[in-house]
Amino acid sequence: MATFEIINTGTELLLGRTLNTHHQWLARQLCDLALTPLRQSAVADTGVAIQEAVREALTRADLIVVTGGLGPTSDDLTRDKIAELLGQPLRLNAAVLAKISQFYVSRNRPMPETTKVQAMVPEGARVVMNQHGTAPGLAMRVQPNPHRASGAPSWLVLLPGPPRELRPMFTSQVRPWLREEFPANGTHVSRTLRTTGLGESQIEESLAAQLTTLTSRGLEVGYCAQMGQVELRFSAQGATAAALVTEAEALARRELGPAIFGEGDDTLEAVIIHRLTERRQTVALAESCTGGMISHRLTNVPGASAVFLGGMVTYSNAAKVELLGVDPATLASEGAVSEAVAKQMAEGARRRLKSDYAISVTGIAGPSGGTPNKPVGTVFIGLATAQTVTAVRHFNPVDRETFKWMTSQQALDRLRHALIG
Amino acid sequence: MATFEIINTGTELLLGRTLNTHHQWLARQLCDLALTPLRQSAVADTGVAIQEAVREALTRADLIVVTGGLGPTSDDLTRDKIAELLGQPLRLNAAVLAKISQFYVSRNRPMPETTKVQAMVPEGARVVMNQHGTAPGLAMRVQPNPHRASGAPSWLVLLPGPPRELRPMFTSQVRPWLREEFPANGTHVSRTLRTTGLGESQIEESLAAQLTTLTSRGLEVGYCAQMGQVELRFSAQGATAAALVTEAEALARRELGPAIFGEGDDTLEAVIIHRLTERRQTVALAESCTGGMISHRLTNVPGASAVFLGGMVTYSNAAKVELLGVDPATLASEGAVSEAVAKQMAEGARRRLKSDYAISVTGIAGPSGGTPNKPVGTVFIGLATAQTVTAVRHFNPVDRETFKWMTSQQALDRLRHALIG
Repeated sequence: MATFEIINTGTELLLGRTLNTHHQWLARQLCDLALTPLRQSAVADTGVAIQEAVREALTRADLIVVTGGLGPTSDDLTRDKIAELLGQPLRLNAAVLAKISQFYVSRNRPMPETTKVQAMVPEGARVVMNQHGTAPGLAMRVQPNPHRASGAPSWLVLLPGPPRELRPMFTSQVRPWLREEFPANGTHVSRTLRTTGLGESQIEESLAAQLTTLTSRGLEVGYCAQMGQVELRFSAQGATAAALVTEAEALARRELGPAIFGEGDDTLEAVIIHRLTERRQTVALAESCTGGMISHRLTNVPGASAVFLGGMVTYSNAAKVELLGVDPATLASEGAVSEAVAKQMAEGARRRLKSDYAISVTGIAGPSGGTPNKPVGTVFIGLATAQTVTAVRHFNPVDRETFKWMTSQQALDRLRHALIG
Repeated sequence: MATFEIINTGTELLLGRTLNTHHQWLARQLCDLALTPLRQSAVADTGVAIQEAVREALTRADLIVVTGGLGPTSDDLTRDKIAELLGQPLRLNAAVLAKISQFYVSRNRPMPETTKVQAMVPEGARVVMNQHGTAPGLAMRVQPNPHRASGAPSWLVLLPGPPRELRPMFTSQVRPWLREEFPANGTHVSRTLRTTGLGESQIEESLAAQLTTLTSRGLEVGYCAQMGQVELRFSAQGATAAALVTEAEALARRELGPAIFGEGDDTLEAVIIHRLTERRQTVALAESCTGGMISHRLTNVPGASAVFLGGMVTYSNAAKVELLGVDPATLASEGAVSEAVAKQMAEGARRRLKSDYAISVTGIAGPSGGTPNKPVGTVFIGLATAQTVTAVRHFNPVDRETFKWMTSQQALDRLRHALIG
């Protein structure tokens, strides 16, 4: 299989001032094209650092994607330094210049002189037009490649840093072209299943023995545990690839059943919104310790507004009484973090918003507020449906942000089970 | 200044299945020790990839931090492969073994035989004990360093992958020791100011000319634009460092005034919670298109419960009427996304929860729902105080998730201005 490396330029990445989300997005895209990742590097915006990293990658990879440093300012050096490394002179490209000046005309802004440098294109390079900014991307074939012992060619693709520019440029222009340039070597099939509610080792134990026959025939299995969910990835190559992956998936579905909530990049919140939409049902929320995170997650899904009626974040006891109709006597006798209050919260949210379902959470995120009977990490998750109101207790003794995330996973998963059960 | 590199091992990182948050965290920690970053790399969990990356880093850096691959399973190769590269034999360390077996005893679980491999320590290595897991960290001084032309020594620090284990190990054990090993070469002073409401170029324009004198005397200035905020970083070295940075900060504060909301890693939400706590005042929220994100952000701050009374996420018109008392006639005549509704929402939240302040947001996140007069991206932000109720219109024509983030920044910033004004 053809190999790739990603080089992210940008001092702000290297200093840790910015989180590198480029790499994750690009790596997934390239893996989906059946390319094999060799390495990812982040380097500073200096000529030496960029050239050194590219030179090293040219010794190893068939495809090198470089992000960032294509803009008009003095610290944008990627275009110049790579052209220099390859010994390719830069020429002013009239089509690119016209595109850039059109960008300014359409915004009624004068075109700064500095921006013209973005129309300089190394001889023989392909231009990747930018619909959302001024810096075009560039692609060049390094052939012969003096850096590689085999002399095999490498492709270099340069893309601008801003995700809003990079992503559509990759998807609409670079991807179709990579598909032709690097056709999958034989059939490559991969399938990712996403689970929640089981630990990585539990999953491995229930599957490992039965998967042995398939792995001996070439199936590859990967487990990836993230907070509150585990991803299971099956892949195979060659003529039997599809059959192997299908068999593995059937086995996993038989053994893990409803713990599998989705495939690929499915999120728990998207699965729930789609399920509610199909069933033409609605949900409401009553959140205490998750502080709006469940609501935030559900409303990240386009189309949520049709099935998510609303939520209440009732941090204080007064808000629980005023907004959800929780009984002050129950709060006094059982405490705000209790099964009884979780049930009243879910019931109150469902009644107030006239939804089919309501989920509630009340717990102690910490760092303070714990007691011996209800230590930090204790949480009750309530669920109200047309038939019943129930609440279950969980214990998530982790830091505040992880607590909110894990609790939101558990609450969403309770709702998911109600929707499939 | 001493230099560092970070090598993150893990096939799941390379495939883009997991977002690399390690690097950002570690890079900030190391930069705070006045170390200079040279490069970050992510490599697969294979012996060849790990050894190649470490060998290359040994040619360049004074300190190399490697994360991941220290666990007990067959794809945990970092310890073995680095010991092999350095030619250091591994020896069973009794203290580490005792610590691991104690970990299992305290959890009433039998110790798996495989886990013993984690007690193998390369000769001469320092052990970094792990309070939250079984894999210890390791630190080794490579001296003489045959990989470096100068022969100068390099330090190698190996830390386990899970953030819950890595972070406290670094903070309590590795950091103090790095401070001694790499004392800041002369004085190094740096200061980061965080702003919101101004663009990067606006900030650069208002400061650049006046900063010239300071930069000519050795001040370094960095700008980093993130969504809805711009970070301004001043740093300098040597005897005049503190004076230079202080002068630059005074200049920035004079020119940018209240656009500066904090320092270092301050977030807008933390600044607001602290300010409310100082003033013994409270806030309530009424969110439509931000869907709970503002509430989620405020409740990420420990201590939020004392000043954040609660919020309502009113996605539907019915919820706006039922929970916030918005007038159905106003909804019909003005539409849900309007100045009048934003004001009624803020007023309703403040009245229902008896808070000092309430902020509201109502807008069109998209991708659908826009009209010619109110295109996707239109949003009204309301603010109710004891004195007045006002609403302002913003336009954020960006994708759904960015829209939610930018709108939450603008809403929190309105509240911040009310708190300082």
